Amino acid sequence: MPHDLRSFLDEWHRVVAAKDLDGLAPLLAEQVSLGAPPYWPRFESREVVQHLLGVILTTIEDFTYHREWTEPQELALEFSGRVGEHELQGVDLISLDEAFAVTRLDVLMRPTGSVDALRDLVAPRMTEFFAIRGGGAG
Amino acid sequence: MPHDLRSFLDEWHRVVAAKDLDGLAPLLAEQVSLGAPPYWPRFESREVVQHLLGVILTTIEDFTYHREWTEPQELALEFSGRVGEHELQGVDLISLDEAFAVTRLDVLMRPTGSVDALRDLVAPRMTEFFAIRGGGAG
Repeated sequence: MPHDLRSFLDEWHRVVAAKDLDGLAPLLAEQVSLGAPPYWPRFESREVVQHLLGVILTTIEDFTYHREWTEPQELALEFSGRVGEHELQGVDLISLDEAFAVTRLDVLMRPTGSVDALRDLVAPRMTEFFAIRGGGAG
Repeated sequence: MPHDLRSFLDEWHRVVAAKDLDGLAPLLAEQVSLGAPPYWPRFESREVVQHLLGVILTTIEDFTYHREWTEPQELALEFSGRVGEHELQGVDLISLDEAFAVTRLDVLMRPTGSVDALRDLVAPRMTEFFAIRGGGAG
């Protein structure tokens, strides 16, 4: 478990680079919520957000972080990647709680064509996940 | 002309709140480029970017800035708004030159339905602008 902002960021980058989905869970608060690029309603709970981030991370190719802005509990992390031939630029807006766990994560991307291509690959895997687990996007 | 980051931000927020499009031009470098939410190719030049920002600002309703991250020459500014019934969340990623003028602006928004609604209103006005001016999106 990270004990300060620097150790949170080090572990976040390690988990993303390694696509270490088990390592993601301890970085997320139990009641974390995620705002995904294609949808306005938010995804809620550590279990759902961990799974969704895992699907996204294993779908986007050449995922690379760039500029990084940090305030004590609020972060903005720019990234790039592609989905097939669709290049994309994105930013993670992250809120941390007092224990340096993610309570809120908003993922914004451009352009919309790349978001649509990503959604077409991610949505069926999330739908299958919700079917097995029971329940929906909250 | 702003002489430091604080005066740039003050003037940027004043211009956006007042929708003062003439006031926008001095904040933009001559060779500014803008990455818009729906498209991957970038819009180039002060004249084009000023016009596009003006159209966007007069189209998004209830435009409001929220979290703000600042590094000496790199900024991330979160905003919210709506297009008719479509709520949206966005972030401006801004690079400044030595004279505190914007050289690069990336606008990322979610969800895609709101970006599509915004594009449907903005694109015809930009197309008319390019027809009158001559030239394209570069």
